[in-house]
Amino acid sequence: MKELPLSHVYELIEPGPVVLLTTARNGRPNVMTMSWHMMVEFEPPLIACVVSDADFSFAALRATRECVIAVPAVELAAKVVKVGNSSGRDIDKFEAFGLTPLPAERVTPPLVGECFANLECRVADSRFVNRYDLFILEVLKAWVDPAQKKPRTIHHHGFGRFVVDGETIRLKSKMR
Amino acid sequence: MKELPLSHVYELIEPGPVVLLTTARNGRPNVMTMSWHMMVEFEPPLIACVVSDADFSFAALRATRECVIAVPAVELAAKVVKVGNSSGRDIDKFEAFGLTPLPAERVTPPLVGECFANLECRVADSRFVNRYDLFILEVLKAWVDPAQKKPRTIHHHGFGRFVVDGETIRLKSKMR
Repeated sequence: MKELPLSHVYELIEPGPVVLLTTARNGRPNVMTMSWHMMVEFEPPLIACVVSDADFSFAALRATRECVIAVPAVELAAKVVKVGNSSGRDIDKFEAFGLTPLPAERVTPPLVGECFANLECRVADSRFVNRYDLFILEVLKAWVDPAQKKPRTIHHHGFGRFVVDGETIRLKSKMR
Repeated sequence: MKELPLSHVYELIEPGPVVLLTTARNGRPNVMTMSWHMMVEFEPPLIACVVSDADFSFAALRATRECVIAVPAVELAAKVVKVGNSSGRDIDKFEAFGLTPLPAERVTPPLVGECFANLECRVADSRFVNRYDLFILEVLKAWVDPAQKKPRTIHHHGFGRFVVDGETIRLKSKMR
């Protein structure tokens, strides 16, 4: 994994890909699938996300205030769905689905070795957790896998229907 | 425009498309481009979004507490970028870029006639506006244009680079 400057993190999250979220509690890592997230600030990068209190990851995230957001390319789609269909209450999803936990640098939850980008995050604001299960995360460190060229992400339309990245178009924009 | 059941709204927002946001103040409609948004609740649909206080739309949204989120397909990409490159302080963007404001049913800001989906919204929670420019919107009414078949949305990767929806894949998912 190669370090990604924090100023580039929004380019990963703003397009709305399905991502994985890892947590760790009592020495046990877990991973869930997530699509409800958005950028809140460019730098330092702030990301808002919703983790339902019905998810096993919720208690770990709230208690430890740490997570990793890992961005999978389409080749991982089947595993991403399996992660979403199961709970860390019942199984070790890393082992069950052949995902590789790699040590992070700034947080305890692991990176996901198969993902093309990994963002080490801490909870920066939990004031909307009780009301909306909404966490504000600060990205502390970002990594990309240079071996994965032009990764195509997936976008969830509900009930296992995903749209895969297609062509890229470029227009003269002042928008960052 | 045909009404869309509110339970289907997340299928539009969750995949992360670039959207337009309309507001209206003192009888004057305006429109901006936005990519920082996410679902917060399925039904009634709640959407979080960030509208920078540097945007002309910010004051209108905060004061009137109403907006419309309009979802453009790729055919509108050039206009979407023009909307993002200009300010309602200076011009009437509907007129300048040939976008058609249509009356909404529950709010004052207009629908955008050229967009394949339009969501009439009110601000449901503004407690994070001062800190993060983050609004929680409730969708009151949703519309889709049945004439636009299989619309392909665009996803912003920064500086005018957009990825267009490609192929669709289906996997057996319990995830809504």
